[in-house]
Amino acid sequence: MSDRAPASAGGLVVSGCDVLRVRPEGECEVLRAQDIVVADGVIQEIRPAAGDVPQGGAAMADVIDGRGLLAVPGLVNAHTHSPMVLMRGAAEDVTVEAWFNDRVWPMESNLTPADVHIGAQLACAEMIRSGVTTFADHYFFPERIAEAVAASGLRADIAPTFFSSRGAEALDGTVGFAEDWHGAADGRVTVSLGPHAPYTVDDADLRTLSGHARRLGLRIHIHAAEHLEQTESSLERRGITPIRVLHETGVLEAGALIAHGCGIVEQDLPLLAEYAGTTAVACCPKVYLKHALSPLTPVRALLDTGVTVAVGTDGAAGHNTLDVWEALRLVALTQKQAVRDATWMTVSDTLRLATRGGARALGLGDRIGALEPGMRADIVLTDLSGPHCRPLHDPRAALVYSARAADVRTVVVDGRVLMRDGELLTVDERALIEEAEARVARILDTSHGRAVQHYDP
Amino acid sequence: MSDRAPASAGGLVVSGCDVLRVRPEGECEVLRAQDIVVADGVIQEIRPAAGDVPQGGAAMADVIDGRGLLAVPGLVNAHTHSPMVLMRGAAEDVTVEAWFNDRVWPMESNLTPADVHIGAQLACAEMIRSGVTTFADHYFFPERIAEAVAASGLRADIAPTFFSSRGAEALDGTVGFAEDWHGAADGRVTVSLGPHAPYTVDDADLRTLSGHARRLGLRIHIHAAEHLEQTESSLERRGITPIRVLHETGVLEAGALIAHGCGIVEQDLPLLAEYAGTTAVACCPKVYLKHALSPLTPVRALLDTGVTVAVGTDGAAGHNTLDVWEALRLVALTQKQAVRDATWMTVSDTLRLATRGGARALGLGDRIGALEPGMRADIVLTDLSGPHCRPLHDPRAALVYSARAADVRTVVVDGRVLMRDGELLTVDERALIEEAEARVARILDTSHGRAVQHYDP
Repeated sequence: MSDRAPASAGGLVVSGCDVLRVRPEGECEVLRAQDIVVADGVIQEIRPAAGDVPQGGAAMADVIDGRGLLAVPGLVNAHTHSPMVLMRGAAEDVTVEAWFNDRVWPMESNLTPADVHIGAQLACAEMIRSGVTTFADHYFFPERIAEAVAASGLRADIAPTFFSSRGAEALDGTVGFAEDWHGAADGRVTVSLGPHAPYTVDDADLRTLSGHARRLGLRIHIHAAEHLEQTESSLERRGITPIRVLHETGVLEAGALIAHGCGIVEQDLPLLAEYAGTTAVACCPKVYLKHALSPLTPVRALLDTGVTVAVGTDGAAGHNTLDVWEALRLVALTQKQAVRDATWMTVSDTLRLATRGGARALGLGDRIGALEPGMRADIVLTDLSGPHCRPLHDPRAALVYSARAADVRTVVVDGRVLMRDGELLTVDERALIEEAEARVARILDTSHGRAVQHYDP
Repeated sequence: MSDRAPASAGGLVVSGCDVLRVRPEGECEVLRAQDIVVADGVIQEIRPAAGDVPQGGAAMADVIDGRGLLAVPGLVNAHTHSPMVLMRGAAEDVTVEAWFNDRVWPMESNLTPADVHIGAQLACAEMIRSGVTTFADHYFFPERIAEAVAASGLRADIAPTFFSSRGAEALDGTVGFAEDWHGAADGRVTVSLGPHAPYTVDDADLRTLSGHARRLGLRIHIHAAEHLEQTESSLERRGITPIRVLHETGVLEAGALIAHGCGIVEQDLPLLAEYAGTTAVACCPKVYLKHALSPLTPVRALLDTGVTVAVGTDGAAGHNTLDVWEALRLVALTQKQAVRDATWMTVSDTLRLATRGGARALGLGDRIGALEPGMRADIVLTDLSGPHCRPLHDPRAALVYSARAADVRTVVVDGRVLMRDGELLTVDERALIEEAEARVARILDTSHGRAVQHYDP
């Protein structure tokens, strides 16, 4: 094609936007007034815009007028439990123990597959609105989540939650889900295996799942060393840290996305360094603060070992939103404080964690996480014209410290427009919210005394 | 007037809204489907709504359809430097010392009165949009801020910033500003005296200003014990804490709004308890985290002594926004973590700090901070229908942990509508942003080597 040719038929041009370039290291840059040319779901070219907005047409590319907007790589939510939006705000001001044992695990025993389907769809709507294009999920009834993701147009890596208390058949079921769904929806749905945590899954099951993961080429998404007390408890009960359990059961060897890791200690670092190329930790600071945890994820030490760090929200029963802007801002703020260094976790580093970091954490670093030719076209157009962003000295700082999810205008995933100028195109938000509200009373009723599991790490 | 009569001519009825009732203590409540009747800038009555929206008319009250919206008391930003929006995002990833000495104080030496006027107006636009109806300001060229506030329709307490390095004439100037402006704009503008801090204002000037404050019935708004290192430095240099300096110079006796107070220590508490009825501390956690400070404001200890605690943003050169939703959420999150108690700083307590707490901190506790008959009509209508708030198990939790400034639809101050369904009515936002952007290059130029002050606390 010629230098200024439109994209091929069925393609997309985002015209005249500024573009955030997130390099693998160093400062992020903002390229002014570019055209992003997309075909077959892939970014073909990013080039200085011509003066006029190209016109679309029947056999031509769709054109989005991006003038005045800043294109950023779609954000990655590296750890969540999407259907928990159904319990948003239903477990406030309680201890971690009460959160699990009195609120969330009893409520979860009420969930039906249909609830999970509605919850996941609603979560997709919220994430599209806030510029999250990919998420790592971990939950029950994963087929219903996969269906929601496939229909919404988002990208997700879905780990079916497994407790040893569920038995061998349930374990086989999670493996079956992986075999059915990994790579589905044109590759937008991938699967990781999802043992819940070393304190709810025994070593034999962890070994079995690690074996399946290696056999199928899957990663393992697992909660581990969620806070220091868990690590201390593990040391007391069995003499080794939760991270060493992951090593001894083959989880690290398979490639692990570890949720939280606030209890990762000095002695874990050499072990993690051995597997640095395939290990990631998702940091979700809002829930750590809310649950009064200290210390937080040791992000600086992890990055120093070469482990990937990514940004997550965790489920909305703790985080209340699935807003990665909020989460990435809190990563920057809390990590500066944690190491008492205001010059660290810079604006550029923070943006990198939420994009490239998330992509690598999900095993998708060669496909997403940056706006570059050859990458899948996961593009978020943000509008930084509001008074809370102005004057705009530095758009990168505005993204980290001023912007809100509501500043996201248009969202493209795999070259398909999922939201255009604030209008959701793949999800019927109003109908979903009505459906969700109708299910609430039943889900919140914990008078039966059941729970999916008991928390005693 | 009869039970269902409309408000008097020129009045206002907010019809059919839910109402957040913030009690002086205990749980906040949500009253469903109420009419808020306003006349002469005052809430006359809050009563269950009739079925239909009352019709306004030539001689009748203006009617705002509040159905589906939640009315909350206008938020109070208890510590800011509003014109610093001009430096938003221009001092990132630096130490506290570099922030003051290399970035902010050199930039501030470039500011003209006209800059301050534009900055303050832009800040007013941002605050109206985010549901802040009252703010405590502390800055240079206070007349230009007062003019901006008067025109915008907002409410503010303005403290003219004073350094001893500015000399006696400048001190007299700040007193003259107070005499001219305290109680202006129908009482919407009040004035506090504004010595910058015990480390930039000498004891003699603090005593002089305390005397003026007592004479004029004004409060004193001052930075003190901003972080622990300042307290340690004060103990080392002069043997007493910054809080004891405020005591010895009459500042506490006059009535003080203390910004930050992260360096308030055990030995300060009995002293603060003596003046608890007239002392307040504004907590602005985003800037503490960003500047890697620890410990934070000892909010639990302060509340235990009876001191008022309020929520602030500080200036946008540190906080990047003037968004009190963001600030109050961070107060809840960071204070839970600070005392390692997830059951503390509950949703209701947090909402109270940002409303009644702020009102008391500014000496306005009898006028604003709650939606009750007899209070000035500072009303914010929030729209919690977005997917990030749904399902809506508990609107109070949604306000603290899910809502965003962008969910504010309509803002009323003193009975006057300042924003209606997202449209600003008193500020020309686009023109202001253009004006602000045009001033940026000059304000950011620090090649001259001047500064308003040197930081060495």
